[in-house]
Amino acid sequence: MTTIMKGAPVAAWMKETLEEELAALRRKGIEPRLAVVRVGARPDDLAYERGALKRFEGLDIGAQVFEFPENIDHETFAAAFAKIDALPDVHGILLFRPLPGRLDEDAIKKMIDPLKDVDGMSPFSAAKVFSGDESGFAPCTPSAVMEMLDHYGVELAGRNVAVVGRSMVVGRPLAMLMLRRNATVTICHTKTKNMDAICKNADIVVAAAGKARMLSPAFVSGRSVVVDVGINVDENGQLCGDVDYDAVSPLVSMISPVPGGVGAVTTSVLAKHVLKAAALLNG
Amino acid sequence: MTTIMKGAPVAAWMKETLEEELAALRRKGIEPRLAVVRVGARPDDLAYERGALKRFEGLDIGAQVFEFPENIDHETFAAAFAKIDALPDVHGILLFRPLPGRLDEDAIKKMIDPLKDVDGMSPFSAAKVFSGDESGFAPCTPSAVMEMLDHYGVELAGRNVAVVGRSMVVGRPLAMLMLRRNATVTICHTKTKNMDAICKNADIVVAAAGKARMLSPAFVSGRSVVVDVGINVDENGQLCGDVDYDAVSPLVSMISPVPGGVGAVTTSVLAKHVLKAAALLNG
Repeated sequence: MTTIMKGAPVAAWMKETLEEELAALRRKGIEPRLAVVRVGARPDDLAYERGALKRFEGLDIGAQVFEFPENIDHETFAAAFAKIDALPDVHGILLFRPLPGRLDEDAIKKMIDPLKDVDGMSPFSAAKVFSGDESGFAPCTPSAVMEMLDHYGVELAGRNVAVVGRSMVVGRPLAMLMLRRNATVTICHTKTKNMDAICKNADIVVAAAGKARMLSPAFVSGRSVVVDVGINVDENGQLCGDVDYDAVSPLVSMISPVPGGVGAVTTSVLAKHVLKAAALLNG
Repeated sequence: MTTIMKGAPVAAWMKETLEEELAALRRKGIEPRLAVVRVGARPDDLAYERGALKRFEGLDIGAQVFEFPENIDHETFAAAFAKIDALPDVHGILLFRPLPGRLDEDAIKKMIDPLKDVDGMSPFSAAKVFSGDESGFAPCTPSAVMEMLDHYGVELAGRNVAVVGRSMVVGRPLAMLMLRRNATVTICHTKTKNMDAICKNADIVVAAAGKARMLSPAFVSGRSVVVDVGINVDENGQLCGDVDYDAVSPLVSMISPVPGGVGAVTTSVLAKHVLKAAALLNG
Protein backbone atom coordinates (compact mmCIF):
# COMPACT_ATOMS: atom_id res chain seq x y z
CA MET A 1 0.00 0.00 0.00
CA THR A 2 1.39 3.33 -1.10
CA THR A 3 1.22 6.14 1.47
CA ILE A 4 -0.16 9.26 -0.18
CA MET A 5 1.56 12.27 1.38
CA LYS A 6 -1.15 14.89 1.18
CA GLY A 7 -0.37 18.45 2.16
CA ALA A 8 -3.49 19.25 4.21
CA PRO A 9 -2.59 17.03 7.20
CA VAL A 10 0.88 18.62 7.23
CA ALA A 11 -0.63 22.09 7.33
CA ALA A 12 -2.98 20.99 10.13
CA TRP A 13 -0.04 19.50 12.06
CA MET A 14 1.96 22.70 11.62
CA LYS A 15 -1.02 24.80 12.71
CA GLU A 16 -0.85 23.48 16.26
CA THR A 17 2.76 24.55 16.71
CA LEU A 18 2.20 27.85 14.93
CA GLU A 19 -0.69 28.68 17.27
CA GLU A 20 1.52 28.03 20.29
CA GLU A 21 4.29 30.17 18.86
CA LEU A 22 1.83 32.94 18.04
CA ALA A 23 0.45 32.88 21.57
CA ALA A 24 3.98 33.07 22.98
CA LEU A 25 4.77 36.09 20.79
CA ARG A 26 1.55 37.83 21.81
CA ARG A 27 2.39 37.31 25.47
CA LYS A 28 5.50 39.39 24.73
CA GLY A 29 3.36 42.03 23.02
CA ILE A 30 4.49 41.10 19.53
CA GLU A 31 1.88 41.02 16.76
CA PRO A 32 3.50 39.29 13.74
CA ARG A 33 2.63 40.63 10.33
CA LEU A 34 3.45 39.80 6.71
CA ALA A 35 3.76 42.28 3.85
CA VAL A 36 2.97 40.86 0.44
CA VAL A 37 4.58 42.99 -2.26
CA ARG A 38 3.20 42.54 -5.75
CA VAL A 39 4.07 44.40 -8.96
CA GLY A 40 1.40 43.97 -11.61
CA ALA A 41 -1.29 41.29 -11.40
CA ARG A 42 -0.10 37.99 -12.85
CA PRO A 43 -2.77 35.30 -12.42
CA ASP A 44 -0.40 32.87 -10.64
CA ASP A 45 0.75 35.59 -8.23
CA LEU A 46 -2.87 36.45 -7.47
CA ALA A 47 -3.73 32.80 -6.92
CA TYR A 48 -0.82 32.34 -4.49
CA GLU A 49 -1.70 35.61 -2.76
CA ARG A 50 -5.28 34.48 -2.20
CA GLY A 51 -4.03 31.21 -0.75
CA ALA A 52 -1.56 32.97 1.52
CA LEU A 53 -4.10 35.50 2.79
CA LYS A 54 -6.57 32.71 3.49
CA ARG A 55 -3.92 30.73 5.39
CA PHE A 56 -2.89 33.76 7.44
CA GLU A 57 -6.52 34.55 8.22
CA GLY A 58 -7.04 30.97 9.38
CA LEU A 59 -4.01 31.29 11.64
CA ASP A 60 -5.06 34.77 12.80
CA ILE A 61 -1.76 36.28 11.62
CA GLY A 62 -1.79 39.72 10.01
CA ALA A 63 -0.99 40.15 6.34
CA GLN A 64 -1.18 43.20 4.12
CA VAL A 65 -0.82 43.44 0.33
CA PHE A 66 1.19 46.27 -1.20
CA GLU A 67 0.35 46.44 -4.89
CA PHE A 68 2.30 48.40 -7.50
CA PRO A 69 1.55 49.05 -11.16
CA GLU A 70 3.27 46.86 -13.70
CA ASN A 71 4.97 49.86 -15.32
CA ILE A 72 6.49 51.38 -12.16
CA ASP A 73 10.08 52.60 -12.59
CA HIS A 74 12.95 51.22 -10.56
CA GLU A 75 13.67 54.27 -8.40
CA THR A 76 10.05 54.68 -7.34
CA PHE A 77 9.65 51.00 -6.57
CA ALA A 78 12.97 50.76 -4.73
CA ALA A 79 12.04 53.72 -2.54
CA ALA A 80 8.62 52.21 -1.77
CA PHE A 81 10.17 48.82 -1.05
CA ALA A 82 12.67 50.39 1.35
CA LYS A 83 9.80 52.05 3.21
CA ILE A 84 7.91 48.76 3.56
CA ASP A 85 11.10 47.00 4.64
CA ALA A 86 11.61 49.59 7.37
CA LEU A 87 8.07 49.37 8.82
CA PRO A 88 8.52 48.26 12.42
CA ASP A 89 5.24 46.33 12.44
CA VAL A 90 6.16 44.31 9.33
CA HIS A 91 8.11 41.16 10.27
CA GLY A 92 8.27 39.40 6.95
CA ILE A 93 8.10 40.34 3.29
CA LEU A 94 6.98 38.17 0.40
CA LEU A 95 7.91 39.72 -2.94
CA PHE A 96 6.48 38.11 -6.06
CA ARG A 97 9.12 37.38 -8.66
CA PRO A 98 10.21 37.63 -11.38
CA LEU A 99 9.81 41.40 -11.30
CA PRO A 100 9.06 43.20 -14.57
CA GLY A 101 12.22 43.64 -16.66
CA ARG A 102 12.57 47.37 -16.04
CA LEU A 103 13.11 46.73 -12.32
CA ASP A 104 16.57 45.67 -11.08
CA GLU A 105 15.58 42.52 -9.24
CA ASP A 106 19.08 41.82 -7.90
CA ALA A 107 19.24 45.27 -6.34
CA ILE A 108 15.85 44.80 -4.66
CA LYS A 109 16.85 41.38 -3.31
CA LYS A 110 19.87 42.95 -1.63
CA MET A 111 17.73 45.65 -0.02
CA ILE A 112 15.54 43.41 2.12
CA ASP A 113 16.39 43.13 5.81
CA PRO A 114 17.70 39.54 6.01
CA LEU A 115 15.69 39.12 9.22
CA LYS A 116 12.48 39.85 7.27
CA ASP A 117 13.41 37.74 4.27
CA VAL A 118 10.80 35.04 4.87
CA ASP A 119 10.98 33.68 1.31
CA GLY A 120 14.78 33.52 1.28
CA MET A 121 15.49 35.80 -1.68
CA SER A 122 18.44 37.87 -0.41
CA PRO A 123 22.06 36.84 -1.01
CA PHE A 124 22.56 36.84 2.78
CA SER A 125 19.81 34.25 3.16
CA ALA A 126 21.23 32.20 0.28
CA ALA A 127 24.71 32.25 1.83
CA LYS A 128 23.31 31.05 5.15
CA VAL A 129 21.32 28.25 3.54
CA PHE A 130 24.42 27.30 1.54
CA SER A 131 26.57 27.12 4.68
CA GLY A 132 23.95 25.28 6.73
CA ASP A 133 23.33 28.21 9.09
CA GLU A 134 19.80 27.71 10.43
CA SER A 135 19.28 31.39 11.18
CA GLY A 136 18.84 32.06 7.46
CA PHE A 137 15.53 31.63 5.68
CA ALA A 138 15.30 29.12 2.83
CA PRO A 139 12.62 29.72 0.19
CA CYS A 140 9.20 28.38 1.23
CA THR A 141 8.92 25.52 -1.27
CA PRO A 142 12.03 23.53 -0.28
CA SER A 143 11.18 24.18 3.37
CA ALA A 144 7.72 22.75 2.69
CA VAL A 145 9.31 19.57 1.32
CA MET A 146 11.18 19.17 4.61
CA GLU A 147 8.00 19.73 6.67
CA MET A 148 6.20 17.13 4.60
CA LEU A 149 8.91 14.49 5.04
CA ASP A 150 9.07 15.23 8.77
CA HIS A 151 5.33 14.97 9.19
CA TYR A 152 5.22 11.62 7.42
CA GLY A 153 8.12 10.32 9.51
CA VAL A 154 10.64 9.90 6.70
CA GLU A 155 14.12 9.48 8.12
CA LEU A 156 16.75 11.59 6.35
CA ALA A 157 20.10 11.08 8.09
CA GLY A 158 22.33 8.76 6.12
CA ARG A 159 19.77 8.25 3.38
CA ASN A 160 20.33 8.85 -0.31
CA VAL A 161 18.31 11.69 -1.78
CA ALA A 162 18.08 12.54 -5.47
CA VAL A 163 16.99 16.12 -6.13
CA VAL A 164 15.90 16.60 -9.74
CA GLY A 165 16.32 20.28 -10.59
CA ARG A 166 18.89 22.88 -9.63
CA SER A 167 17.00 26.17 -9.40
CA MET A 168 17.68 28.71 -6.68
CA VAL A 169 14.06 28.51 -5.52
CA VAL A 170 13.89 24.73 -5.07
CA GLY A 171 16.70 22.38 -6.13
CA ARG A 172 19.81 24.05 -4.74
CA PRO A 173 18.39 25.20 -1.38
CA LEU A 174 16.64 21.85 -0.96
CA ALA A 175 19.95 20.05 -1.44
CA MET A 176 21.44 22.17 1.35
CA LEU A 177 18.48 21.58 3.69
CA MET A 178 18.86 17.84 3.08
CA LEU A 179 22.60 18.09 3.75
CA ARG A 180 21.90 19.88 7.03
CA ARG A 181 19.86 16.85 8.02
CA ASN A 182 22.74 14.55 7.10
CA ALA A 183 21.23 13.07 3.97
CA THR A 184 23.56 12.19 1.08
CA VAL A 185 22.38 14.35 -1.77
CA THR A 186 22.73 13.98 -5.53
CA ILE A 187 21.68 16.99 -7.61
CA CYS A 188 20.33 15.95 -11.02
CA HIS A 189 19.47 18.23 -13.92
CA THR A 190 18.88 18.32 -17.69
CA LYS A 191 22.47 17.30 -18.43
CA THR A 192 22.42 14.31 -16.06
CA LYS A 193 22.97 10.94 -17.69
CA ASN A 194 21.14 7.82 -16.48
CA MET A 195 18.92 9.96 -14.31
CA ASP A 196 16.39 7.14 -14.05
CA ALA A 197 18.98 4.80 -12.52
CA ILE A 198 20.26 7.48 -10.12
CA CYS A 199 16.72 8.21 -8.92
CA LYS A 200 15.80 4.54 -8.71
CA ASN A 201 18.79 3.91 -6.44
CA ALA A 202 17.91 6.78 -4.12
CA ASP A 203 15.76 6.34 -1.03
CA ILE A 204 14.03 9.67 -1.60
CA VAL A 205 13.40 11.43 -4.91
CA VAL A 206 12.30 15.05 -5.09
CA ALA A 207 11.09 16.15 -8.51
CA ALA A 208 11.58 19.87 -9.09
CA ALA A 209 12.37 19.91 -12.78
CA GLY A 210 9.38 21.88 -14.03
CA LYS A 211 8.59 19.30 -16.68
CA ALA A 212 5.18 17.67 -16.74
CA ARG A 213 5.12 13.97 -15.80
CA MET A 214 8.82 13.43 -16.64
CA LEU A 215 9.38 11.09 -13.70
CA SER A 216 8.24 7.71 -15.01
CA PRO A 217 8.20 4.24 -13.39
CA ALA A 218 11.84 3.77 -14.51
CA PHE A 219 12.86 6.33 -11.85
CA VAL A 220 11.47 4.51 -8.83
CA SER A 221 11.54 1.29 -6.85
CA GLY A 222 9.22 -0.25 -4.27
CA ARG A 223 11.00 1.56 -1.44
CA SER A 224 11.04 5.02 -3.11
CA VAL A 225 9.69 8.04 -1.29
CA VAL A 226 8.66 10.49 -4.03
CA VAL A 227 8.00 14.17 -3.42
CA ASP A 228 6.61 16.12 -6.36
CA VAL A 229 7.28 19.85 -6.36
CA GLY A 230 6.23 20.39 -9.97
CA ILE A 231 3.23 22.51 -10.93
CA ASN A 232 2.55 22.17 -14.64
CA VAL A 233 -0.42 22.43 -16.92
CA ASP A 234 -0.60 19.55 -19.38
CA GLU A 235 -1.80 19.61 -22.99
CA ASN A 236 -5.40 19.13 -21.82
CA GLY A 237 -5.23 22.10 -19.47
CA GLN A 238 -4.97 19.78 -16.49
CA LEU A 239 -2.80 20.68 -13.46
CA CYS A 240 -0.10 18.06 -12.97
CA GLY A 241 3.25 17.52 -11.30
CA ASP A 242 6.69 16.46 -12.53
CA VAL A 243 5.78 12.86 -11.71
CA ASP A 244 3.63 10.61 -13.87
CA TYR A 245 1.44 10.07 -10.83
CA ASP A 246 -0.98 7.46 -12.18
CA ALA A 247 1.83 5.22 -13.39
CA VAL A 248 4.25 5.80 -10.50
CA SER A 249 2.05 5.95 -7.40
CA PRO A 250 1.15 2.20 -7.28
CA LEU A 251 4.84 1.27 -7.45
CA VAL A 252 6.37 3.29 -4.60
CA SER A 253 6.39 3.40 -0.84
CA MET A 254 5.23 7.02 -0.44
CA ILE A 255 4.29 9.79 -2.86
CA SER A 256 2.96 13.34 -2.71
CA PRO A 257 0.17 14.27 -5.14
CA VAL A 258 -0.23 17.39 -7.30
CA PRO A 259 -2.38 19.28 -6.54
CA GLY A 260 -2.88 18.78 -2.80
CA GLY A 261 0.73 17.94 -1.92
CA VAL A 262 3.70 20.24 -1.29
CA GLY A 263 1.80 23.23 -2.69
CA ALA A 264 -0.67 23.01 0.20
CA VAL A 265 2.17 23.36 2.72
CA THR A 266 4.10 26.39 1.37
CA THR A 267 1.81 29.03 2.88
CA SER A 268 2.08 27.32 6.27
CA VAL A 269 5.86 27.56 5.92
CA LEU A 270 5.47 31.22 5.05
CA ALA A 271 3.54 31.71 8.30
CA LYS A 272 6.18 29.75 10.23
CA HIS A 273 8.88 31.98 8.78
CA VAL A 274 6.96 35.14 9.71
CA LEU A 275 6.70 33.97 13.32
CA LYS A 276 10.41 33.10 13.34
CA ALA A 277 11.21 36.53 11.88
CA ALA A 278 9.06 38.25 14.49
CA ALA A 279 10.93 36.38 17.22
CA LEU A 280 14.36 37.16 15.69
CA LEU A 281 13.53 40.84 15.19
CA ASN A 282 12.48 41.12 18.82
CA GLY A 283 15.17 38.80 20.15
CA MET B 1 48.85 3.19 -16.94
CA THR B 2 47.61 5.64 -14.37
CA THR B 3 47.94 9.33 -15.26
CA ILE B 4 49.44 11.20 -12.30
CA MET B 5 47.88 14.66 -12.18
CA LYS B 6 50.71 16.74 -10.76
CA GLY B 7 50.12 20.37 -9.88
CA ALA B 8 53.28 21.91 -11.33
CA PRO B 9 52.32 21.47 -15.00
CA VAL B 10 48.92 23.00 -14.20
CA ALA B 11 50.59 26.02 -12.63
CA ALA B 12 52.93 26.32 -15.64
CA TRP B 13 49.95 26.09 -18.01
CA MET B 14 48.08 28.76 -16.05
CA LYS B 15 51.16 30.98 -16.02
CA GLU B 16 50.97 31.55 -19.76
CA THR B 17 47.43 32.87 -19.59
CA LEU B 18 48.14 34.88 -16.45
CA GLU B 19 51.08 36.62 -18.10
CA GLU B 20 48.88 37.59 -21.04
CA GLU B 21 46.19 38.90 -18.72
CA LEU B 22 48.76 40.80 -16.69
CA ALA B 23 50.19 42.41 -19.81
CA ALA B 24 46.68 43.41 -20.91
CA LEU B 25 46.00 45.03 -17.52
CA ARG B 26 49.31 46.89 -17.61
CA ARG B 27 48.51 48.25 -21.04
CA LYS B 28 45.50 49.86 -19.35
CA GLY B 29 47.74 51.24 -16.61
CA ILE B 30 46.50 48.78 -13.98
CA GLU B 31 49.06 47.24 -11.62
CA PRO B 32 47.34 44.34 -9.81
CA ARG B 33 48.23 43.82 -6.19
CA LEU B 34 47.33 41.37 -3.42
CA ALA B 35 47.09 42.16 0.29
CA VAL B 36 47.76 39.22 2.57
CA VAL B 37 46.22 39.84 6.00
CA ARG B 38 47.51 37.67 8.80
CA VAL B 39 46.69 37.78 12.52
CA GLY B 40 49.31 35.99 14.59
CA ALA B 41 51.87 33.62 13.08
CA ARG B 42 50.51 30.09 12.76
CA PRO B 43 53.05 27.85 11.03
CA ASP B 44 50.61 26.70 8.32
CA ASP B 45 49.62 30.29 7.54
CA LEU B 46 53.29 31.25 7.28
CA ALA B 47 53.98 28.30 4.99
CA TYR B 48 51.11 29.21 2.70
CA GLU B 49 52.14 32.86 2.77
CA ARG B 50 55.67 31.99 1.69
CA GLY B 51 54.31 29.90 -1.18
CA ALA B 52 51.94 32.66 -2.27
CA LEU B 53 54.62 35.36 -2.18
CA LYS B 54 56.97 33.17 -4.19
CA ARG B 55 54.26 32.47 -6.76
CA PHE B 56 53.38 36.15 -7.06
CA GLU B 57 57.04 37.07 -7.42
CA GLY B 58 57.42 34.48 -10.17
CA LEU B 59 54.43 36.00 -11.95
CA ASP B 60 55.65 39.54 -11.29
CA ILE B 61 52.41 40.43 -9.49
CA GLY B 62 52.59 42.65 -6.41
CA ALA B 63 51.77 41.28 -2.96
CA GLN B 64 52.07 42.85 0.47
CA VAL B 65 51.68 41.25 3.89
CA PHE B 66 49.78 43.06 6.63
CA GLU B 67 50.56 41.37 9.92
CA PHE B 68 48.67 41.90 13.16
CA PRO B 69 49.40 40.65 16.66
CA GLU B 70 47.54 37.57 17.84
CA ASN B 71 45.97 39.50 20.74
CA ILE B 72 44.57 42.42 18.73
CA ASP B 73 41.03 43.44 19.74
CA HIS B 74 38.12 43.36 17.33
CA GLU B 75 37.57 47.10 16.93
CA THR B 76 41.23 47.81 16.19
CA PHE B 77 41.47 44.96 13.71
CA ALA B 78 38.15 45.79 12.01
CA ALA B 79 39.28 49.40 11.53
CA ALA B 80 42.62 48.30 10.08
CA PHE B 81 40.92 45.76 7.81
CA ALA B 82 38.52 48.42 6.53
CA LYS B 83 41.49 50.64 5.67
CA ILE B 84 43.23 47.85 3.74
CA ASP B 85 39.98 47.00 1.98
CA ALA B 86 39.63 50.61 0.86
CA LEU B 87 43.18 50.95 -0.55
CA PRO B 88 42.71 51.75 -4.23
CA ASP B 89 45.92 49.92 -5.22
CA VAL B 90 44.86 46.69 -3.49
CA HIS B 91 42.77 44.50 -5.81
CA GLY B 92 42.50 41.35 -3.78
CA ILE B 93 42.66 40.38 -0.11
CA LEU B 94 43.63 37.03 1.34
CA LEU B 95 42.74 36.79 5.02
CA PHE B 96 44.03 33.81 6.96
CA ARG B 97 41.33 32.03 8.90
CA PRO B 98 40.23 30.97 11.39
CA LEU B 99 40.78 34.27 13.16
CA PRO B 100 41.56 34.22 16.89
CA GLY B 101 38.40 33.76 18.95
CA ARG B 102 38.27 37.32 20.25
CA LEU B 103 37.72 38.59 16.69
CA ASP B 104 34.25 38.44 15.12
CA GLU B 105 35.12 36.54 11.96
CA ASP B 106 31.61 36.74 10.49
CA ALA B 107 31.63 40.52 10.80
CA ILE B 108 35.02 40.76 9.08
CA LYS B 109 33.86 38.47 6.26
CA LYS B 110 30.95 40.80 5.59
CA MET B 111 33.23 43.85 5.46
CA ILE B 112 35.34 42.84 2.49
CA ASP B 113 34.53 44.44 -0.86
CA PRO B 114 33.06 41.45 -2.79
CA LEU B 115 35.09 42.54 -5.82
CA LYS B 116 38.31 42.10 -3.79
CA ASP B 117 37.24 38.83 -2.18
CA VAL B 118 39.74 36.64 -4.06
CA ASP B 119 39.44 33.74 -1.60
CA GLY B 120 35.64 33.75 -1.61
CA MET B 121 35.00 34.35 2.09
CA SER B 122 32.16 36.90 2.01
CA PRO B 123 28.49 35.88 2.08
CA PHE B 124 28.04 37.74 -1.21
CA SER B 125 30.67 35.54 -2.84
CA ALA B 126 29.12 32.42 -1.30
CA ALA B 127 25.67 33.38 -2.59
CA LYS B 128 27.04 33.89 -6.10
CA VAL B 129 28.88 30.57 -6.08
CA PHE B 130 25.71 28.91 -4.75
CA SER B 131 23.59 30.37 -7.54
CA GLY B 132 26.16 29.64 -10.27
CA ASP B 133 26.95 33.31 -10.92
CA GLU B 134 30.48 33.35 -12.37
CA SER B 135 31.17 36.91 -11.24
CA GLY B 136 31.58 35.68 -7.66
CA PHE B 137 34.86 34.28 -6.36
CA ALA B 138 34.95 30.70 -5.09
CA PRO B 139 37.61 29.81 -2.52
CA CYS B 140 40.98 28.99 -4.12
CA THR B 141 41.10 25.27 -3.34
CA PRO B 142 37.90 24.16 -5.13
CA SER B 143 38.84 26.46 -8.01
CA ALA B 144 42.22 24.72 -8.16
CA VAL B 145 40.47 21.36 -8.49
CA MET B 146 38.62 22.68 -11.54
CA GLU B 147 41.85 24.03 -13.09
CA MET B 148 43.51 20.67 -12.59
CA LEU B 149 40.69 18.72 -14.22
CA ASP B 150 40.59 21.17 -17.12
CA HIS B 151 44.33 20.98 -17.66
CA TYR B 152 44.27 17.19 -17.74
CA GLY B 153 41.34 17.21 -20.15
CA VAL B 154 38.76 15.60 -17.87
CA GLU B 155 35.28 16.07 -19.30
CA LEU B 156 32.73 17.17 -16.67
CA ALA B 157 29.39 17.73 -18.42
CA GLY B 158 27.02 14.85 -17.79
CA ARG B 159 29.52 12.95 -15.68
CA ASN B 160 28.95 11.72 -12.16
CA VAL B 161 31.07 13.38 -9.50
CA ALA B 162 31.30 12.32 -5.87
CA VAL B 163 32.54 15.06 -3.56
CA VAL B 164 33.61 13.69 -0.18
CA GLY B 165 33.35 16.50 2.35
CA ARG B 166 30.91 19.36 2.81
CA SER B 167 32.96 22.26 4.17
CA MET B 168 32.42 25.84 3.05
CA VAL B 169 36.05 26.07 1.89
CA VAL B 170 36.04 22.97 -0.33
CA GLY B 171 33.13 20.52 -0.53
CA ARG B 172 30.10 22.81 -0.90
CA PRO B 173 31.62 25.38 -3.29
CA LEU B 174 33.23 22.58 -5.31
CA ALA B 175 29.82 20.92 -5.72
CA MET B 176 28.47 24.19 -7.10
CA LEU B 177 31.43 24.68 -9.47
CA MET B 178 30.86 21.14 -10.75
CA LEU B 179 27.15 21.85 -11.18
CA ARG B 180 27.98 24.98 -13.17
CA ARG B 181 29.90 22.71 -15.54
CA ASN B 182 26.89 20.40 -15.83
CA ALA B 183 28.29 17.51 -13.82
CA THR B 184 25.89 15.45 -11.72
CA VAL B 185 27.14 15.89 -8.17
CA THR B 186 26.72 13.76 -5.06
CA ILE B 187 27.88 15.33 -1.80
CA CYS B 188 29.13 12.70 0.66
CA HIS B 189 30.08 13.24 4.30
CA THR B 190 30.61 11.48 7.61
CA LYS B 191 26.97 10.37 7.81
CA THR B 192 26.91 8.91 4.29
CA LYS B 193 26.19 5.21 4.08
CA ASN B 194 27.88 2.99 1.49
CA MET B 195 30.25 5.81 0.61
CA ASP B 196 32.63 3.35 -1.04
CA ALA B 197 29.96 2.18 -3.47
CA ILE B 198 28.84 5.74 -4.24
CA CYS B 199 32.42 6.81 -4.98
CA LYS B 200 33.16 3.66 -6.96
CA ASN B 201 30.18 4.35 -9.21
CA ALA B 202 31.23 7.95 -9.85
CA ASP B 203 33.40 8.96 -12.80
CA ILE B 204 35.27 11.51 -10.71
CA VAL B 205 35.93 11.41 -6.95
CA VAL B 206 37.19 14.43 -5.04
CA ALA B 207 38.42 13.67 -1.54
CA ALA B 208 38.09 16.66 0.78
CA ALA B 209 37.27 14.93 4.02
CA GLY B 210 40.32 15.92 6.04
CA LYS B 211 40.95 12.33 7.10
CA ALA B 212 44.31 10.73 6.31
CA ARG B 213 44.17 7.95 3.68
CA MET B 214 40.46 7.25 4.21
CA LEU B 215 39.83 6.64 0.50
CA SER B 216 40.78 3.02 -0.01
CA PRO B 217 40.68 0.76 -3.09
CA ALA B 218 37.02 -0.01 -2.30
CA PHE B 219 36.15 3.55 -3.36
CA VAL B 220 37.48 3.36 -6.92
CA SER B 221 37.30 1.51 -10.21
CA GLY B 222 39.58 1.33 -13.24
CA ARG B 223 37.93 4.37 -14.81
CA SER B 224 38.01 6.58 -11.68
CA VAL B 225 39.53 10.04 -11.81
CA VAL B 226 40.63 10.79 -8.24
CA VAL B 227 41.47 14.27 -6.98
CA ASP B 228 42.91 14.48 -3.48
CA VAL B 229 42.42 17.78 -1.66
CA GLY B 230 43.46 16.43 1.74
CA ILE B 231 46.52 17.71 3.56
CA ASN B 232 47.14 15.57 6.63
CA VAL B 233 50.08 14.54 8.72
CA ASP B 234 50.11 10.84 9.47
CA GLU B 235 51.29 9.05 12.62
CA ASN B 236 54.87 9.05 11.31
CA GLY B 237 54.87 12.80 10.73
CA GLN B 238 54.53 12.24 6.97
CA LEU B 239 52.43 14.58 4.81
CA CYS B 240 49.62 12.65 3.16
CA GLY B 241 46.27 13.16 1.45
CA ASP B 242 42.78 11.78 2.07
CA VAL B 243 43.52 9.00 -0.41
CA ASP B 244 45.55 5.88 0.34
CA TYR B 245 47.75 6.80 -2.59
CA ASP B 246 50.03 3.75 -2.71
CA ALA B 247 47.10 1.35 -2.70
CA VAL B 248 44.75 3.37 -4.91
CA SER B 249 47.00 4.89 -7.57
CA PRO B 250 47.71 1.65 -9.51
CA LEU B 251 43.97 0.92 -9.77
CA VAL B 252 42.58 4.13 -11.26
CA SER B 253 42.63 6.06 -14.50
CA MET B 254 43.93 9.35 -13.09
CA ILE B 255 44.98 10.55 -9.65
CA SER B 256 46.49 13.66 -8.07
CA PRO B 257 49.28 13.17 -5.52
CA VAL B 258 49.79 14.84 -2.12
CA PRO B 259 52.03 16.77 -1.90
CA GLY B 260 52.56 18.12 -5.40
CA GLY B 261 48.95 17.97 -6.54
CA VAL B 262 46.08 20.41 -5.94
CA GLY B 263 48.09 22.27 -3.30
CA ALA B 264 50.58 23.37 -5.96
CA VAL B 265 47.79 25.03 -7.94
CA THR B 266 45.99 27.09 -5.28
CA THR B 267 48.41 30.04 -5.33
CA SER B 268 48.10 30.21 -9.13
CA VAL B 269 44.34 30.41 -8.67
CA LEU B 270 44.89 33.17 -6.12
CA ALA B 271 46.87 35.08 -8.76
CA LYS B 272 44.17 34.43 -11.36
CA HIS B 273 41.56 35.79 -8.98
CA VAL B 274 43.63 38.92 -8.26
CA LEU B 275 43.88 39.64 -12.00
CA LYS B 276 40.14 39.06 -12.41
CA ALA B 277 39.48 41.37 -9.44
CA ALA B 278 41.75 44.06 -10.91
CA ALA B 279 39.83 43.84 -14.18
CA LEU B 280 36.41 43.93 -12.43
CA LEU B 281 37.41 46.87 -10.21
CA ASN B 282 38.53 48.82 -13.26
CA GLY B 283 35.76 47.56 -15.56
